[in-house]
Amino acid sequence: MSTSKLTHFVESGAARMVDVGDKAETLRTAVAAGAIEMAPETLARICAGTVDKGDVLGVARVAAICGLKRTSELIPMCHPVRVTGVDVALDPIDAVAVDGRAQLGIRATVRARDRTGVEMEALTAVTLAALTVYDMCKAIDRGMRVVDVRLVEKHGGKSGSWVRGEPDGRA
Amino acid sequence: MSTSKLTHFVESGAARMVDVGDKAETLRTAVAAGAIEMAPETLARICAGTVDKGDVLGVARVAAICGLKRTSELIPMCHPVRVTGVDVALDPIDAVAVDGRAQLGIRATVRARDRTGVEMEALTAVTLAALTVYDMCKAIDRGMRVVDVRLVEKHGGKSGSWVRGEPDGRA
Amino acid sequence: MSTSKLTHFVESGAARMVDVGDKAETLRTAVAAGAIEMAPETLARICAGTVDKGDVLGVARVAAICGLKRTSELIPMCHPVRVTGVDVALDPIDAVAVDGRAQLGIRATVRARDRTGVEMEALTAVTLAALTVYDMCKAIDRGMRVVDVRLVEKHGGKSGSWVRGEPDGRA
Amino acid sequence: MSTSKLTHFVESGAARMVDVGDKAETLRTAVAAGAIEMAPETLARICAGTVDKGDVLGVARVAAICGLKRTSELIPMCHPVRVTGVDVALDPIDAVAVDGRAQLGIRATVRARDRTGVEMEALTAVTLAALTVYDMCKAIDRGMRVVDVRLVEKHGGKSGSWVRGEPDGRA
Amino acid sequence: MSTSKLTHFVESGAARMVDVGDKAETLRTAVAAGAIEMAPETLARICAGTVDKGDVLGVARVAAICGLKRTSELIPMCHPVRVTGVDVALDPIDAVAVDGRAQLGIRATVRARDRTGVEMEALTAVTLAALTVYDMCKAIDRGMRVVDVRLVEKHGGKSGSWVRGEPDGRA
Amino acid sequence: MSTSKLTHFVESGAARMVDVGDKAETLRTAVAAGAIEMAPETLARICAGTVDKGDVLGVARVAAICGLKRTSELIPMCHPVRVTGVDVALDPIDAVAVDGRAQLGIRATVRARDRTGVEMEALTAVTLAALTVYDMCKAIDRGMRVVDVRLVEKHGGKSGSWVRGEPDGRA
Repeated sequence: MSTSKLTHFVESGAARMVDVGDKAETLRTAVAAGAIEMAPETLARICAGTVDKGDVLGVARVAAICGLKRTSELIPMCHPVRVTGVDVALDPIDAVAVDGRAQLGIRATVRARDRTGVEMEALTAVTLAALTVYDMCKAIDRGMRVVDVRLVEKHGGKSGSWVRGEPDGRA
Repeated sequence: MSTSKLTHFVESGAARMVDVGDKAETLRTAVAAGAIEMAPETLARICAGTVDKGDVLGVARVAAICGLKRTSELIPMCHPVRVTGVDVALDPIDAVAVDGRAQLGIRATVRARDRTGVEMEALTAVTLAALTVYDMCKAIDRGMRVVDVRLVEKHGGKSGSWVRGEPDGRA
Repeated sequence: MSTSKLTHFVESGAARMVDVGDKAETLRTAVAAGAIEMAPETLARICAGTVDKGDVLGVARVAAICGLKRTSELIPMCHPVRVTGVDVALDPIDAVAVDGRAQLGIRATVRARDRTGVEMEALTAVTLAALTVYDMCKAIDRGMRVVDVRLVEKHGGKSGSWVRGEPDGRA
Repeated sequence: MSTSKLTHFVESGAARMVDVGDKAETLRTAVAAGAIEMAPETLARICAGTVDKGDVLGVARVAAICGLKRTSELIPMCHPVRVTGVDVALDPIDAVAVDGRAQLGIRATVRARDRTGVEMEALTAVTLAALTVYDMCKAIDRGMRVVDVRLVEKHGGKSGSWVRGEPDGRA
Repeated sequence: MSTSKLTHFVESGAARMVDVGDKAETLRTAVAAGAIEMAPETLARICAGTVDKGDVLGVARVAAICGLKRTSELIPMCHPVRVTGVDVALDPIDAVAVDGRAQLGIRATVRARDRTGVEMEALTAVTLAALTVYDMCKAIDRGMRVVDVRLVEKHGGKSGSWVRGEPDGRA
Repeated sequence: MSTSKLTHFVESGAARMVDVGDKAETLRTAVAAGAIEMAPETLARICAGTVDKGDVLGVARVAAICGLKRTSELIPMCHPVRVTGVDVALDPIDAVAVDGRAQLGIRATVRARDRTGVEMEALTAVTLAALTVYDMCKAIDRGMRVVDVRLVEKHGGKSGSWVRGEPDGRA
């Protein structure tokens, strides 16, 4: 195969990792949230620390922090980012919704100083925390659901800030 | 530290990977589903294949299949499993809900012949597909949400079959 | 390069992964232990749960369980094994040794039903727990040491049982 | 999204991991080979052990063995396999070809007892060994080429044996 | 073991990761290429999208992009690099060579802003794309070969530009 | 779950990855050391290169260099760091201690230009080298112990230099 042949490789629709090399390295923050809906008695056992597999909230938090560091391995077109700080909070929500289900809220805040944002890292952290809760409690409540995983806000970079629910933040 | 000292290590509440070594190696199947809610125009672009980062549905499917093979690395108390087969389906749902949002449905079917089930593999596949869609479309629709990620059914193993919505399938 | 040429590749001293394909798939157990030596006040803070980075014992336990599942990726000649169960115990040892140092004992028990033993998985779990403790406490005690990481006992497989300190268990 | 909606997800052309759960767990062997073409003086330095970055042949062998254990993470539709044994041989080929280039031959033999073959593991081993050689020598010979990476033979499984060059082995 | 003892550790021939900490963080680009040789009918099926395992070109492209982000895990002496952009092109080459074989050309362009080049990332992308094609088509054409994987050009860094075939670019 | 609800997530004792985004990117160096204690005849075989599984010292060195690049995946609260250089030395210590045991000393020097130190990378390298030695020799000496893994010195960053055994370096 000649080199000249190679020079006119052209494909439309082909996936690619968009180049961010010309973007400035600035402070980036992203906050994502979500929840896992479950039977009220499941939430009670999580909070009481009586789930057989151990400390659900503690393990979910570690899973979120560990796993988000691998976001660019899991999400194909994501750029590798050196995350500088992470907080993951898990908050039992006692308000029982219409259908008698309880929820455990999950919220992840991720920071980096990089050429691209950390929204995917924050969303990955929330989903891995939720899946870890599911795994540790599935023997007692297979019907749990992960719900409403979303970006809450992001700051930094050329596109600036975005906050959900504000006029320019759709939905 | 003497060995005798070590023999009475006792801790309550400590996380552990429950032993499944005495369970039989049988055929296991799990189906999980979920959706990603978005603006109708985002869904239209995904289906038309005009998203800048490339073929969203194709990349999401690969992300799901690749990523689920690492479930036991991501979910701390999960056992490593040799998955034997996977199908991931992505289905645009044209019915626009109450609030004018469209959805892309995601469904993963995972099979293995092992001592433990593959529910977590199926749920991991669904969430990674959803996050990949988010990543590839976030430049045009930051307000997307991952919703309703849940086990649909599972078969095999000592606990047998569970199908959501049936009398013994909670929620 | 002809195929015939390739048939007499011979190298002495070359590393290789020894074939275990003819060994029977049997129940394997390994117990490893070790300790991390530190200032008594460091151990006191770990036990009181007042280390800034969070719950040291809980995070170390998760690090050990998660990390050991990747043993065959980290230790080059190790065979991949499907671990079926893991317990990791961390035990503050109040006895202050000759030089006024305290210790946190670590002990990992790993089980599998496989063609090769799980000694390396157990040793990997112990060292990763120790390194996690170091990481979370290094801001207050850089002088900590990981000491005495060793196999305590192993059972199963053709070579049978080995118990440290018994006549046939060297050292 | 209703469950009934999900039951008729149908997609043609979608990538999937073909199910091998009904195949028997049998002994599988695969041999792959390839070579890296280089300047004769580069090969001389590799053999003399005078490359600045260290023992090229030894490091390449470890890279091959380590990396092949992650084949199913790298090749999307590959099944995870528990490899039971691996040999990697690197063989300087002194015969200098038409254009004055030397070659280092690489050959990997992989064995497993599984439901699917290990051809991809053997091919991955060969390419990772070749890339490692490239990496360690690129400061002195950027023009090296990886050539002729191919399956040499495979045995086991329903499709039985295949040997390159035999009547039923194409090419 | 005394510290003084440790101060004169000396080993010749030992592999090491060469320090690049004093190099400037500059824009780096590398282009690598290669091809996979196959039966003409295999190439026809790939292009027609009728291979059973799915969209071969799309999956190979994702495998290349995902996998190259793990180059430093796979190639032992490689430095970790934050890649900023990647393009992978796959180009069916209709010209049937001397022996009646067709080829699928692969070309990867990688960019980063770092202290070291991205040649290995580009070469890794090309080989993983090729291996993925092999995997998805091996049921119909076991005789495929990966051929001519090479660096095409690189730019940036102290050693500046290198272009294959130019007077200073060997081979 | 309302966003307002999420704004007062508060948890004491929760693990977190401390933010280092405001720290300067400076040159960081860390040296860690340790040893693996063994029967004198085991050390003799390692040095003579007659261990069945191959070149123990060479494989251990590669394991250390490869594995330390994954430190932030293994140690949950560790920040990802782009390591710029690594040296790993293995030194047989002939002095036979009180109880007739020999030792193989291990020492890793790691450098980076980052916002956080590389102590954990150096300690991870030492322990992985030690575990690899154990793995390759365990068939002949199950009684080996990893001993005295510790930070020897670190330089760079706001906290500056720390050297073990100096007035401000505890222990």
